[in-house]
Amino acid sequence: MRIAISTGGGDAPGLNAVIRAAVLSARTRGWDVLGIKRGFSGLLGEDEIVPLTTDSVRGIAGQGGTIIKTTNRGSPFAYPIQQPDGTWKNVDRSDELVENARNLGIEAIISIGGDGSLKIAQQLQEKGVRVVSVPKTIDNDVAGTITTFGFDTAVNTAMEAIDKLHTTAESHDRVMVLEVMGREAGFIALHAGVAGTADVILIPEIEWEIDKVCEKIMARDASGKRFSIVVVAEGSKPKGGHESIIGESLPGQDRRLGGIAERLGYDIQRLTGKETRSMVLGHLQRGGSPTGYDRLLATRFGAAAVQAVADKKWGHMVALQSPHLVTIPIEEVLRETKRVDPKHDVVQTARMIGISFGD
Amino acid sequence: MRIAISTGGGDAPGLNAVIRAAVLSARTRGWDVLGIKRGFSGLLGEDEIVPLTTDSVRGIAGQGGTIIKTTNRGSPFAYPIQQPDGTWKNVDRSDELVENARNLGIEAIISIGGDGSLKIAQQLQEKGVRVVSVPKTIDNDVAGTITTFGFDTAVNTAMEAIDKLHTTAESHDRVMVLEVMGREAGFIALHAGVAGTADVILIPEIEWEIDKVCEKIMARDASGKRFSIVVVAEGSKPKGGHESIIGESLPGQDRRLGGIAERLGYDIQRLTGKETRSMVLGHLQRGGSPTGYDRLLATRFGAAAVQAVADKKWGHMVALQSPHLVTIPIEEVLRETKRVDPKHDVVQTARMIGISFGD
Amino acid sequence: MRIAISTGGGDAPGLNAVIRAAVLSARTRGWDVLGIKRGFSGLLGEDEIVPLTTDSVRGIAGQGGTIIKTTNRGSPFAYPIQQPDGTWKNVDRSDELVENARNLGIEAIISIGGDGSLKIAQQLQEKGVRVVSVPKTIDNDVAGTITTFGFDTAVNTAMEAIDKLHTTAESHDRVMVLEVMGREAGFIALHAGVAGTADVILIPEIEWEIDKVCEKIMARDASGKRFSIVVVAEGSKPKGGHESIIGESLPGQDRRLGGIAERLGYDIQRLTGKETRSMVLGHLQRGGSPTGYDRLLATRFGAAAVQAVADKKWGHMVALQSPHLVTIPIEEVLRETKRVDPKHDVVQTARMIGISFGD
Amino acid sequence: MRIAISTGGGDAPGLNAVIRAAVLSARTRGWDVLGIKRGFSGLLGEDEIVPLTTDSVRGIAGQGGTIIKTTNRGSPFAYPIQQPDGTWKNVDRSDELVENARNLGIEAIISIGGDGSLKIAQQLQEKGVRVVSVPKTIDNDVAGTITTFGFDTAVNTAMEAIDKLHTTAESHDRVMVLEVMGREAGFIALHAGVAGTADVILIPEIEWEIDKVCEKIMARDASGKRFSIVVVAEGSKPKGGHESIIGESLPGQDRRLGGIAERLGYDIQRLTGKETRSMVLGHLQRGGSPTGYDRLLATRFGAAAVQAVADKKWGHMVALQSPHLVTIPIEEVLRETKRVDPKHDVVQTARMIGISFGD
Repeated sequence: MRIAISTGGGDAPGLNAVIRAAVLSARTRGWDVLGIKRGFSGLLGEDEIVPLTTDSVRGIAGQGGTIIKTTNRGSPFAYPIQQPDGTWKNVDRSDELVENARNLGIEAIISIGGDGSLKIAQQLQEKGVRVVSVPKTIDNDVAGTITTFGFDTAVNTAMEAIDKLHTTAESHDRVMVLEVMGREAGFIALHAGVAGTADVILIPEIEWEIDKVCEKIMARDASGKRFSIVVVAEGSKPKGGHESIIGESLPGQDRRLGGIAERLGYDIQRLTGKETRSMVLGHLQRGGSPTGYDRLLATRFGAAAVQAVADKKWGHMVALQSPHLVTIPIEEVLRETKRVDPKHDVVQTARMIGISFGD
Repeated sequence: MRIAISTGGGDAPGLNAVIRAAVLSARTRGWDVLGIKRGFSGLLGEDEIVPLTTDSVRGIAGQGGTIIKTTNRGSPFAYPIQQPDGTWKNVDRSDELVENARNLGIEAIISIGGDGSLKIAQQLQEKGVRVVSVPKTIDNDVAGTITTFGFDTAVNTAMEAIDKLHTTAESHDRVMVLEVMGREAGFIALHAGVAGTADVILIPEIEWEIDKVCEKIMARDASGKRFSIVVVAEGSKPKGGHESIIGESLPGQDRRLGGIAERLGYDIQRLTGKETRSMVLGHLQRGGSPTGYDRLLATRFGAAAVQAVADKKWGHMVALQSPHLVTIPIEEVLRETKRVDPKHDVVQTARMIGISFGD
Repeated sequence: MRIAISTGGGDAPGLNAVIRAAVLSARTRGWDVLGIKRGFSGLLGEDEIVPLTTDSVRGIAGQGGTIIKTTNRGSPFAYPIQQPDGTWKNVDRSDELVENARNLGIEAIISIGGDGSLKIAQQLQEKGVRVVSVPKTIDNDVAGTITTFGFDTAVNTAMEAIDKLHTTAESHDRVMVLEVMGREAGFIALHAGVAGTADVILIPEIEWEIDKVCEKIMARDASGKRFSIVVVAEGSKPKGGHESIIGESLPGQDRRLGGIAERLGYDIQRLTGKETRSMVLGHLQRGGSPTGYDRLLATRFGAAAVQAVADKKWGHMVALQSPHLVTIPIEEVLRETKRVDPKHDVVQTARMIGISFGD
Repeated sequence: MRIAISTGGGDAPGLNAVIRAAVLSARTRGWDVLGIKRGFSGLLGEDEIVPLTTDSVRGIAGQGGTIIKTTNRGSPFAYPIQQPDGTWKNVDRSDELVENARNLGIEAIISIGGDGSLKIAQQLQEKGVRVVSVPKTIDNDVAGTITTFGFDTAVNTAMEAIDKLHTTAESHDRVMVLEVMGREAGFIALHAGVAGTADVILIPEIEWEIDKVCEKIMARDASGKRFSIVVVAEGSKPKGGHESIIGESLPGQDRRLGGIAERLGYDIQRLTGKETRSMVLGHLQRGGSPTGYDRLLATRFGAAAVQAVADKKWGHMVALQSPHLVTIPIEEVLRETKRVDPKHDVVQTARMIGISFGD
């Protein structure tokens, strides 16, 4: 048996632990393992195919990143190719991929990735390539699994940032706005915000108003708590859209504000008169050594993916449905979207202890 | 409404986050909250009863320990009292407790604790005291809930210790033995061991033999991996009992070995000839700032306990049955014991990637 | 004896450890200690004066921030007062301060702060107020002392950020630009950059060119290291000034770029064609629990300041001149500026191991 | 030019950063670098000699341990050889080492190690081998340098342990005894103890009495602080010797107590009646990723060692005499011993804030 592993999309802490567990359990069964470099680029002749041995994966479980690299660009079904006139065109190169895989003797692919990679996996599956998927998302927005690796590390990174901002906010009586990842799903903001005892949490799933945000801050101020912490997911939307909070250029400057944190911070200071600072946590959330939770889950996923290959669960994704690991058809996963349910107990808990969602 | 909170048994990271969430959500409802110092000692006149306000719980969510203190000694139903002759006798002081609670106007108690506290809660409940319980156990051995707060922090602490021992083991070609908590349940050893990529994991639920442990170490040695990491739960039992691994005094010394780690380390060195060091992680596992996972879960439990009081769920324990919080009757919880299932996928995963359980 | 303590300027990890040590050692001598809230505001009737007891400082050594708060606004010698017409005017309120201090029976002030606070301390000293200063600067830019508390914590925070960006940069073959604090002194960028193995370090003390930065990145790329980490101090200046790197609006957007990291990242991507991301570490560098180094140094400074009061070292600052603590006249401190010496061995070391300063 | 690097004695965080900096700066000069495995074993034919390239040292600056391994056993001048009758005898194998080095074309050796390695370096130097040393000691007991790498990491590890024990001590009103490294020098205990706000610090340089220790604990108890933290260096000596604190077997057991922490804890509980727990931090202090301070210092030392080779500073050790790096003759270093000076300001600071040294 010869299998190949690929990692696609943004990196997440735990990718290497998945790779390690998959390689170790495949080697134990006597299988060969190849690593496809940079998503599927390795199978399109754009990058390498490397053998993965027990030595290749030694000591990597605790390391961030992915030893076989990853990429955000290019589905094999719509691969960007530069044309002679300099423009770019998406070309279907899936036949090429299928043939390369066959020539390399690859009998199954373990594809580790998020929604984009799952779609590719499903399409490859339909073309006869045997694929088993492992869900990967910092944002926790892949359906069918209670959670996936990387999310817990991101939540802890965000929470530690909130902890740090807390002391400086309190010492200076400031409002601190922290933007965390979450383009469509606010799980990081919600979990880190509650764990880090934020005062306001703004997520894509709950439409908010700047006035409600300021009300909360001023109510705290009035009760003697002269600082506040606001956590905002990058995809969070105010009522009336992004432009409703400072659409124009800054007064007296020819510079317009950038992301949600900067705009929000500007408006809070303008409306409350309180000194406000904003920061974007950005890629720090993707980096670093995975937490125990993520290392364990990633290891379980890696071993389970190899088991799924042995069980011929083609077109399935491994998933956590606590306390058990299961496999579910990728097409079922793709039919659903996973978002924060505003009625979920975590949101209710947050409200009960006085956190505002700006609604 | 006036409620009281108590924390009993060994401390666990997250206790303060439970207390904070319970106080904040009770205060939001306009309830009074009292803190009973040191388990139930405060209600027996042996310690204080303190008011808990929003100010009392400010900034404590990220702190280890418990602001109302805890104790391992003394059920009110069998409270140790020193007799005139100097001996100790257990006395039933529960009537006193009930009366003191009544005099203080306490209408319900939120009792945060492990098996011992759950039993007391059940007995108090039977005496007409209204109790809601919150499960607390570092070892993850309370039934009815997938997990509880403190466990994730303990696993991360143990995993980080394994990480640290790894580099020193590898630099010196040594065997390092790490003893972690787990008197009857091996969850910490199992989770931290897999996450930290231990080579051997010894837990109470799987009987092991010293020869199998040494075999694994020597097999690694033969393959060029001249170091090994052994994680052992404190309650882990070798075949033939504790004494089967060095029962006699150390040769040439009049000193006998102490705990499982010291004995095991001694025997590994004796039988494999490899330099071996052992350490006991001990109380480090109970201390420190809780992880994001634990702070969030503890906060949810605290708010859910207040909700359970509002819903008159007397004699119930709040519990996590992912993705939902539920309440279940304490007597059901007490009927079951929770241990590592040797057939669970985490154990299978560990075996698949080459970890030995010494069996 | 009655003394008062104030903390001024931006917060830094270790402030609380200074306060704690000063209070404990003053109380041991039987002295009274007052805390002046928010810089000197407390002595201008704009804020509180609070008693500081051993209980006030219990458990604070490991906490970021300052329990007596701080502020960036307002020297008592030029205090901003809003005029009836709405404009602001700076007013000398130092006589008021002196009188309030006398009325409170304050015999000496321990002033913890950076250059701004040192100037105020010197001026107060000249007005007959007895002052002892403790240097405080995240940037390590106060002369006369080898280092001060807060800097080590900031360096570790920045280094950990670099570590995190490293894995994501490597997985994606990206250039990551990290902006750290350092308006005029590049110590944080230099120390964190070398410790975190950055590839390019840009500091205010060494003028750099964008082309040299891109050369280094492309040389790495050519040798197979397809990612790079650039650490830039916020006050770092390219040859030709800030505007030399993208002064105009972004092509196709009406939005101009903001800080140095964003501009630099944009230019690197434009000139090298490599995917580049930038982030500003910002206030994370001021927050969090101080490192062991900072807690110890802060504790030594706090005790030394009380000793300096006992020794009547009015107008002196405590300082570290390894391995000894000394006191030096504030006016001497103010005569010098402390910057990275481009010939210092740390810079030479960095060059020797292949780090580029863009020059 | 061809140089070789060896690491000897116990491992310390930062060894890899020294190796990396030495290799990178040597390669920049066009030199060849060899790694001698396990101290000098590689040069005695007992282990390998490996080439060290820029690729060998990629990504290792932040890793604990040493990629060329280390050992505590065997000076080449007194190398333990097993005799035909099974006994061991120390044999001078230095001629063999010199010849092997010559045959490999090694022109200079960078020897990274503590007192033992320094002595070997000095002896080799006298035999005509060109050696430059880099000081390595967790305990900070090498003379001639203000500090060396590894110590700061060990202090932080110990301080974090104290932090964790603090919360559990306070929650349970317990005395916690923590044993840290320091056989003859108490720097780790002193620095971590002050930074972690221990109540009692016991070091080899200050003789103490168990009664004074208990007095301090009871004085705290009387003032309402019902818990205490005791930090004890492993080599710390009570007046009357180790046996003065529980020399006999435990009452009712045939087991004698082991190390200083266990004995001390037993006696504190016996004499004060307070529940006491002890733990030995052990090898955790040697492991883990080095702090920023240690990574920077190790990097400076590595580059400086190569510079010293270029400058033909044979028989010299690189050293930190803040703010400068210098080189000093190894024989000077060996003439001195470095211990905590009981009159140093850190000890005085500790006393001023109420810490007891048990004297």
